[in-house]
Amino acid sequence: MSIAEDVRKMKKDAPKLAASDVSIRNEALKNAAEALKANKEKIFEANALDMKRADENGIADSVKKRLKFDDHKLEDVLSGLSMLVDLPDPLGKVTLNRQLDDGLVLKRLTCPIGVIGVIFEARPDALVQISSLCIKSGNCAILKGGKETAETNRVLFKIMRDSAVKAGLPEGCLLQAESHSEIDELLSCDKDVDLLIPRGSNAFVRYIMDNTKIPVMGHADGICHIYVDKYADFDKAVRILVDAKTQYTAACNAVETILVHRDIAKEFLPVLYKAMKEAGVTLKGTKEVSDIIGGETIEEKDFKEYLDLIASVKLVSNVGEAIEHINTFGSHHTDSIITENADIAEVFLQMVDSAGVYQNASTRFADGFRYGFGAEVGISTSKIHARGPVGLEGLVTYKYNLVGNGHIVGDYATGVKKFNHKDL
Amino acid sequence: MSIAEDVRKMKKDAPKLAASDVSIRNEALKNAAEALKANKEKIFEANALDMKRADENGIADSVKKRLKFDDHKLEDVLSGLSMLVDLPDPLGKVTLNRQLDDGLVLKRLTCPIGVIGVIFEARPDALVQISSLCIKSGNCAILKGGKETAETNRVLFKIMRDSAVKAGLPEGCLLQAESHSEIDELLSCDKDVDLLIPRGSNAFVRYIMDNTKIPVMGHADGICHIYVDKYADFDKAVRILVDAKTQYTAACNAVETILVHRDIAKEFLPVLYKAMKEAGVTLKGTKEVSDIIGGETIEEKDFKEYLDLIASVKLVSNVGEAIEHINTFGSHHTDSIITENADIAEVFLQMVDSAGVYQNASTRFADGFRYGFGAEVGISTSKIHARGPVGLEGLVTYKYNLVGNGHIVGDYATGVKKFNHKDL
Repeated sequence: MSIAEDVRKMKKDAPKLAASDVSIRNEALKNAAEALKANKEKIFEANALDMKRADENGIADSVKKRLKFDDHKLEDVLSGLSMLVDLPDPLGKVTLNRQLDDGLVLKRLTCPIGVIGVIFEARPDALVQISSLCIKSGNCAILKGGKETAETNRVLFKIMRDSAVKAGLPEGCLLQAESHSEIDELLSCDKDVDLLIPRGSNAFVRYIMDNTKIPVMGHADGICHIYVDKYADFDKAVRILVDAKTQYTAACNAVETILVHRDIAKEFLPVLYKAMKEAGVTLKGTKEVSDIIGGETIEEKDFKEYLDLIASVKLVSNVGEAIEHINTFGSHHTDSIITENADIAEVFLQMVDSAGVYQNASTRFADGFRYGFGAEVGISTSKIHARGPVGLEGLVTYKYNLVGNGHIVGDYATGVKKFNHKDL
Repeated sequence: MSIAEDVRKMKKDAPKLAASDVSIRNEALKNAAEALKANKEKIFEANALDMKRADENGIADSVKKRLKFDDHKLEDVLSGLSMLVDLPDPLGKVTLNRQLDDGLVLKRLTCPIGVIGVIFEARPDALVQISSLCIKSGNCAILKGGKETAETNRVLFKIMRDSAVKAGLPEGCLLQAESHSEIDELLSCDKDVDLLIPRGSNAFVRYIMDNTKIPVMGHADGICHIYVDKYADFDKAVRILVDAKTQYTAACNAVETILVHRDIAKEFLPVLYKAMKEAGVTLKGTKEVSDIIGGETIEEKDFKEYLDLIASVKLVSNVGEAIEHINTFGSHHTDSIITENADIAEVFLQMVDSAGVYQNASTRFADGFRYGFGAEVGISTSKIHARGPVGLEGLVTYKYNLVGNGHIVGDYATGVKKFNHKDL
């Protein structure tokens, strides 16, 4: 059967999952926790095959760390499942309860989005996190993980789906896509798939966004900025900049561009240069910057997402200029100001048009776990629907239920009746 | 200047509008109300030109009613503006306030989407409604109205923009597009336009959706269903069906397909047929249906959006079959069940995957005014972001502000510090 046919079947099962009681969805997650523990040797064996292939393919150690599924990762995954079980049901919340007229009551209720396709990097724990978030939020999910963990994913997927079905959820609640060609097929399922969440490289996410009519949630690039204001505490600034650049350079929330207030540049840049050099970071700046600290001179148009131990540096005259640079050249992801001046911070926090706007904190905090969401399915730089780290709340939508007793619009159009809107 | 350049300028003004105090945005709306009253003769003169051209072009009376801007329409528009001034500020609402650790506080705040393009039908009152909704919600708006009211729109647009600028809002808060070619230019402004709201014919909306990378909110077709259950009150059913079909046939929320429980078909269909005939409505049904009430026999695949005094009719065996038909062939717009059985109604309300799911009420209630939203910019059948009639709430998004005191992620990764998530 093609993935498109599977997805069509899934679409028919979606309302059943949407209507399922939270006790059943939680039961599915508890079953999964039990099954993961009971089958851990089987999972580890499958993972050993993936690791062997990674060795044969000469995959870097840093990447292999992500492919590995061991007792430590299992513990993380189990604690994530347990947290998710404890979270309140995101479905059926009444967010509007309004009488339109006597006997005519409108309710707005949260409900699942429906069918969600998630394409994610080679990280076995991600499969469990994503599928469990979708189950808890009542969404059917098509999962396509990185091929480097194909063996592990296959075992984990079976555990997740069997656990859901055993709890009483419909067969079609979870689907696995394994081959890359299935992604293109999935992109054309705009009648049946309600949302796509691609995670991965800039180019990959851009490809998904450009080749489907299905709404896409996520982010392509992550050009995050830190603006060191005239009233910055230098110690905090350096500490935060080193963290934001080096704590995990491949992350989308790592800082890529540093803006420095012109008035403090001569004093601050040498301090920053020294700390960054010790941390292994190369700074590339505009001419004004390289005149002070040397190094390569680059122009503003060359600033980019390095995902490496490199950062661009530019001087600005005030917070307004910093805001304009960020709004023009940034990715609307996460940007931070370092300042002790509350008024300037307020302007920055309000006017920077990004999912996360920070003061005196590292951009690396942009993450569902750190925000206390339990987990995230991704980070969105879109301004529509969900923005920033997306947890359970981003996986629900709402519907309006209107219950009347033979009410017709004609009576209101002709003035026989009048609305008496009243929130209940 | 091209519209693309104008929009780029607008994008730079957007953060200023976003940061503007609600008193200034309300002031802009009050200015507009004053200016509309003061310039009413000028508006009526412009409208007379549009009406003259409509006469010359032989435009139908029903359409001319919509083009006309008279004292009555002015009153409606003024009362809309006054309601909007009274509504609470949709911006800056704190929807999450959480300590992540000592001195590290995360807030989620509502904020405008940014730059919104609205393409709407030839209705002068729509220009005022849409621009005022955008101003109140802090969004910059590009307005493209139907060419049949070009003269009136030009006068109204100037009043709206001048009123906003006089209150202190940025020059670039509102833009008018006048020629059809500007629509295509607008569709390519995906770097600067955050959302498009097209209103109009199915084919037009579909064209917009298929030709832009900008997120689109709206609906193409509106194939709304009413399911007459076995436990329906026949009087209510007939009354609601006649209203939903005839009260305004050109509306997207008019009923197009009638599903009837097989057990009551022989008794109910003749009653429905008689009432619909009196109301001028032609019923076309599957063979089972035409065997009972005569008329044209059509197949399920011929069911469509008539926007006319015609409806398709089909029999089903139970509520589950009705739900499956609606979820498969509907537009996820608005669908209603007629039943006195609460359990069956509950299943329908929960499992039909539409923006509006009703019991014993006409589908024609799907409307921002009737829902008590003050006004609407459109009705969305998307499941992402806003669903159903979209008022102020659908024009805002949110951002995360994180304020720390030198906090870095490295401290949490190494275990030096621990998060102590606590909602404040």
